[in-house]
Amino acid sequence: MPAAPKNNPPLRRLLGPGPSAVNPRVLESLSLPVVGHLDPAFLQIMDQNMAMLREVFQTKNRLALPMSGTGSAGMETCFVNLIEPGDAVLIGVNGFFGTRMVDVAQRCGAQVDTVEAQWGTALDPAQFRAALAKKHYKLVAIVHAETSTGVLQPVEEVSRLVHEHDSLLLVDAVTSLGGAPVRVDEWAIDVCYSCTQKCLSCPPGLSPVTFNERAVELVRKRKTKVQSWYLDLSMIEKYWGSERVYHHTAPISMNYALHEALRVALEEGLEASWQRHREVHGVFVREMRKLELEPAVAESIRAPMINAIRVPENVDDAKVRQRLYDEFNIEIGAGLGPLKGKIWRVGLMGDGARVENVELLAKALRQLI
Amino acid sequence: MPAAPKNNPPLRRLLGPGPSAVNPRVLESLSLPVVGHLDPAFLQIMDQNMAMLREVFQTKNRLALPMSGTGSAGMETCFVNLIEPGDAVLIGVNGFFGTRMVDVAQRCGAQVDTVEAQWGTALDPAQFRAALAKKHYKLVAIVHAETSTGVLQPVEEVSRLVHEHDSLLLVDAVTSLGGAPVRVDEWAIDVCYSCTQKCLSCPPGLSPVTFNERAVELVRKRKTKVQSWYLDLSMIEKYWGSERVYHHTAPISMNYALHEALRVALEEGLEASWQRHREVHGVFVREMRKLELEPAVAESIRAPMINAIRVPENVDDAKVRQRLYDEFNIEIGAGLGPLKGKIWRVGLMGDGARVENVELLAKALRQLI
Repeated sequence: MPAAPKNNPPLRRLLGPGPSAVNPRVLESLSLPVVGHLDPAFLQIMDQNMAMLREVFQTKNRLALPMSGTGSAGMETCFVNLIEPGDAVLIGVNGFFGTRMVDVAQRCGAQVDTVEAQWGTALDPAQFRAALAKKHYKLVAIVHAETSTGVLQPVEEVSRLVHEHDSLLLVDAVTSLGGAPVRVDEWAIDVCYSCTQKCLSCPPGLSPVTFNERAVELVRKRKTKVQSWYLDLSMIEKYWGSERVYHHTAPISMNYALHEALRVALEEGLEASWQRHREVHGVFVREMRKLELEPAVAESIRAPMINAIRVPENVDDAKVRQRLYDEFNIEIGAGLGPLKGKIWRVGLMGDGARVENVELLAKALRQLI
Repeated sequence: MPAAPKNNPPLRRLLGPGPSAVNPRVLESLSLPVVGHLDPAFLQIMDQNMAMLREVFQTKNRLALPMSGTGSAGMETCFVNLIEPGDAVLIGVNGFFGTRMVDVAQRCGAQVDTVEAQWGTALDPAQFRAALAKKHYKLVAIVHAETSTGVLQPVEEVSRLVHEHDSLLLVDAVTSLGGAPVRVDEWAIDVCYSCTQKCLSCPPGLSPVTFNERAVELVRKRKTKVQSWYLDLSMIEKYWGSERVYHHTAPISMNYALHEALRVALEEGLEASWQRHREVHGVFVREMRKLELEPAVAESIRAPMINAIRVPENVDDAKVRQRLYDEFNIEIGAGLGPLKGKIWRVGLMGDGARVENVELLAKALRQLI
């Protein structure tokens, strides 16, 4: 067969649930010369990526590194390293990604119980209190910014309860990291994972994770091997640590991209980035209200970087999204699960969190609804 | 903390076991604009990647796609989807990657038996015949080009035996794909995986896999869920197939790079690429002999793209490799396991398989040994 035609992707304005707008400096860094995965020059990039990830996660954890897969690989990394068959796990489910955590944990042999809330609402700490009072859980897992609903789950109260009951807290920060405070140490998050393609403005391909010493100790004390060889942190930390023992060939170019993305994030400053995401979110809500488009999430728990708005009753959801693509080169996200056809999800993430993007989207929607 | 300094990687001549020299067109493609993972423009790239992978794998298999991880994720994908706890698996071990397969298969709950040969030699079909006569195996796995030793394992005779005994054949084509014939259909390989960073001249980050219908049927008939959510082909094929059901966010930029790498491969033509690898390998052997450096592998089973040569007795292995880095910006590979300190591994892969590279390396080694 002949080769396919040359790839010529359109210039989309990425205002969906991710991937988000990639910073031009990050895109450029992807084309830097590839070196070997044990080249001293690459080992230095690895060390710097770890150091910068610690800053972004707001942690002093030694173990903070990007896994060689997308965000879901990060989710699996956490469960697969911490869970042994029969372990009890409590998972908060108020959206698509909480549901996914249940599936992933069960595949590790966990006995899973859930605390649930309606999609579009936050989980109630009182439910965790009740569940934790009844049974001991090795691990409690929650999603910080539920990408499927736009809810930002408060973490601190749940964390306090989890630690009162001597469990570990696992937090999914896939969508929040870099765009809202994720204070791993201050909030006593034991294990946290994220991705590159949301508020870090990097293409998808890596999943930053961090484990504190308590979590690392649990991994060390396992009686069984981690069921995934590819995601086994006991081996991976020997490559990222001073031993430099070869495990798998690290995705060199994607690590370059993450390096530049983290540089961009730290040059702006985390506080400044959080503030920018909040402000742009505020502008978004005001602009949408002018179009009589209402937020689908209560004000106090809205994730600033992933905005759910209700699709008006007389409007054809799919048709509007298609016309945004075709006529305006704008991508926004559809609803998932019970919210399918009911909400749009507008990502204002990382480099895409700009008033200009809100204005362009508002202008386009004015013509389409 | 302040941001790390800007990444400024050196221009290395990558003549190690991989990553190999990245084609400049592929590097450039990494910086193309990122679109969403459900963007029609990206769905087209996915379809074209699948079609081009089929050609490179020399197969008509419907399921041929790049997994979102490096080559070892491809290895794990094959085992994790095919194996259920207690399944009997026979693995050929004559190097580092055969050993790794044993570990991966055992983590899936397989009962593993091995057929072994000394590192640097090929596996003997007679051993497979004997093992298969004694016990039924669901799956038999071998490594085509053993990156750790430079041995190219003949596949056809083993394949015939495996199918006479109604087992499935799994072949690791991580290092051979694109640089030597890998005839999935003609050789009746049921399952095959590879990577991007060897003879496809693309950065590391994806792992092409292909399953024939018989293997897909086994995945469909599983009694237990695949233990890895991230690598579960029953879900992943629904994203790569016509349903387009979201699973994980595909690594967009890496798929662009693979697209361009496959275009480069098909433009040259597979036969032409195989021929080029053979010829450059021939030049390499001649040039090394002028330096009294002998191949470590018998002529009939030498993998042309990964060349093992004996380190002379009076030469300091590590020092020579370090000086190649420091003074010539050339990377070659060290020996692993029992061959540590005894061989150098010279990758002449993909874009790096050029007479010019052999000459530069020979010139440098002349000064260093």
